[in-house]
Amino acid sequence: MTLPETETITLNRDGSTLSVTLNRPQSRNAMSLTMVDELMAVFDWVEANPDVRAVVLRGAGGHFCAGGDIKDMAGARQQAAAGDDQAFFTLNRRFGAMVSRAERLPAVLVCMLEGAVLGGGFGLACVSDVALAAGDARFGLPETGLGVIPAQIAPFVVRRIGLTQARRLALTGGRFDGHGAQALGVVHEVADSTEELEQRLRQVLEQIRRCAPHANRVTKQLVLSVDEQPLDAVLDQAARDFADAVTSEEGQEGTLAFVQKRAPDWT
Amino acid sequence: MTLPETETITLNRDGSTLSVTLNRPQSRNAMSLTMVDELMAVFDWVEANPDVRAVVLRGAGGHFCAGGDIKDMAGARQQAAAGDDQAFFTLNRRFGAMVSRAERLPAVLVCMLEGAVLGGGFGLACVSDVALAAGDARFGLPETGLGVIPAQIAPFVVRRIGLTQARRLALTGGRFDGHGAQALGVVHEVADSTEELEQRLRQVLEQIRRCAPHANRVTKQLVLSVDEQPLDAVLDQAARDFADAVTSEEGQEGTLAFVQKRAPDWT
Amino acid sequence: MTLPETETITLNRDGSTLSVTLNRPQSRNAMSLTMVDELMAVFDWVEANPDVRAVVLRGAGGHFCAGGDIKDMAGARQQAAAGDDQAFFTLNRRFGAMVSRAERLPAVLVCMLEGAVLGGGFGLACVSDVALAAGDARFGLPETGLGVIPAQIAPFVVRRIGLTQARRLALTGGRFDGHGAQALGVVHEVADSTEELEQRLRQVLEQIRRCAPHANRVTKQLVLSVDEQPLDAVLDQAARDFADAVTSEEGQEGTLAFVQKRAPDWT
Repeated sequence: MTLPETETITLNRDGSTLSVTLNRPQSRNAMSLTMVDELMAVFDWVEANPDVRAVVLRGAGGHFCAGGDIKDMAGARQQAAAGDDQAFFTLNRRFGAMVSRAERLPAVLVCMLEGAVLGGGFGLACVSDVALAAGDARFGLPETGLGVIPAQIAPFVVRRIGLTQARRLALTGGRFDGHGAQALGVVHEVADSTEELEQRLRQVLEQIRRCAPHANRVTKQLVLSVDEQPLDAVLDQAARDFADAVTSEEGQEGTLAFVQKRAPDWT
Repeated sequence: MTLPETETITLNRDGSTLSVTLNRPQSRNAMSLTMVDELMAVFDWVEANPDVRAVVLRGAGGHFCAGGDIKDMAGARQQAAAGDDQAFFTLNRRFGAMVSRAERLPAVLVCMLEGAVLGGGFGLACVSDVALAAGDARFGLPETGLGVIPAQIAPFVVRRIGLTQARRLALTGGRFDGHGAQALGVVHEVADSTEELEQRLRQVLEQIRRCAPHANRVTKQLVLSVDEQPLDAVLDQAARDFADAVTSEEGQEGTLAFVQKRAPDWT
Repeated sequence: MTLPETETITLNRDGSTLSVTLNRPQSRNAMSLTMVDELMAVFDWVEANPDVRAVVLRGAGGHFCAGGDIKDMAGARQQAAAGDDQAFFTLNRRFGAMVSRAERLPAVLVCMLEGAVLGGGFGLACVSDVALAAGDARFGLPETGLGVIPAQIAPFVVRRIGLTQARRLALTGGRFDGHGAQALGVVHEVADSTEELEQRLRQVLEQIRRCAPHANRVTKQLVLSVDEQPLDAVLDQAARDFADAVTSEEGQEGTLAFVQKRAPDWT
């Protein structure tokens, strides 16, 4: 199955890793509606290709993503003026649908956060499984300073860093760098040079490859279900999933490799 | 509309900021029933006065608030002895109602935490949007050491710092200072001198003024709704709020100011 | 009432403290089904003995617990091969039932975390009220590296340290030491020598003894209910509990001791 055709993002597959690069550097990779639709198409492809175990999301030109696209906003304003009272709702909600979908991606989502990580870019970073940041990346929620609200972003920020920190950020427009992002719990690791950041990525991808592919997918679903269901229901489902995993080919290979004191072969 | 008449708290309005000072320094601003009722009247006033964008809550005489009032407790004990089996329930629950209301205040609630921040004072600090503390402030939950329970406080502590830290504090009576409070995530910033604390307050108020007033109110409601509703419902409501915000006067001024590269005028 | 007879764990009562030592050092205290059943019997005993105020859980031989027991797994595999399609479900789910029960233990649960704190051992550590760790303890979720999933563990990890950190750990098989565990919020305190660790335990037990016994039990229930019920329901129940506590013998002794400026006597 071939990768989808895209204009605003660049795709590159290397074995079990798919690199997705937001590629509108002239606007610091502002998240346009086209980009949202293309990311959705990539997510379809990832769901259909279980061989891809990690998706690495980054931005071209030294920035991750500076937020929403000004031209789309102008377009929605024209549509609204022409009588479409759903234009802004639809534009805004579509972005949140994409972020919700990114959160549940069956592959492990790794974000490489450099330069501007603002507004929608910040929201997208908040659903990564592993977030690596440059020390001088710039995070923030500029929305209320522009007279609007961080609508599809705030919920993901609250879930990422908790209400206590999210409320202050959202109500003061506070900015912070990669080290601040780590202190707040937005990102997992910070690197102060590009080389170091890339080296950390290689290590993370190596860790992911050592985990059993199907076990990782099931574990991600399990972890995401914890805040959505009562504890006993989560534990019941988890025990069913465990029984399936341990009797699967992966479970048998894992057990055998452990007994034989060798690395398991997941391919 | 004039400010409410109060005995136990001092009110001072300066433009878009309302300063509220708990003013019973002889008892380290212990939270009496009168003080609870007067705070409720202030919250009524704030809800009716959207021009007030920030409420700064602090205590007179070097302490924030040392907890509940001993005289009210003695009074409830007499009422209970006289046959009123609801006396303690009513006294206790009224405090929790005030803290719940403080959490949902439409203005940004900033707490200045100095000296004793104990029991009820700690609970109140836990619903602030921005919490600034003196390094030598003293936080804690002394209740179980006195044979009672942190009834209306514990829920706000759990929501503020999470179950893992809250359970230890509540069950060991642990005390900590302003730096400890920052490490636990109770407060956002710590200052080691009064001058520094006041300077940080001025910076926070300046940040708040740069945000659009109505956008900030809507954002606060949004952020508080995240843990109360399913994600899709939150995102749907947020998209409706976004459409309203972007087409409002604030949204238009914000967009225009951005294009014209000037600071927006929210007045 | 005598302590239960046990094979795989060692019990020792000293006043209001019960020490529970996982005692299968030859397998780094791997959690066997027998051990799970014996812990359940201990929890029954603790529930029936309110004089026990703290349960200190640790492992013999320098390790806390290295995870599930290989022999039980082999046994379930034989049962499954013989047609018992519930063998793995039952084995796995029983462990989660024990951890859920440990979380709600009426006494304060203190975990002493040394050496291996892996898989099931990590899950058990995640429901302690107070967690003290050796700096060189080794924490981790090795399951997906073995082709299976951290089924009954992941939910407790998410509730302990939040989704943001739990997802990374579970999907990368990351390992960390006691200092890392403190940074992640798994444990409350870290000590770099056995003497220091034991001294911290003595201090924690002394803090617990200063708290009123019944008030601590009610407070633990209250704290655990916060994420399970709407805020107003929690506050209503808490106000009823407060009224009961303040009029109880403990509440009267606590008030009297406060007025007389002496330490309260809870015995």
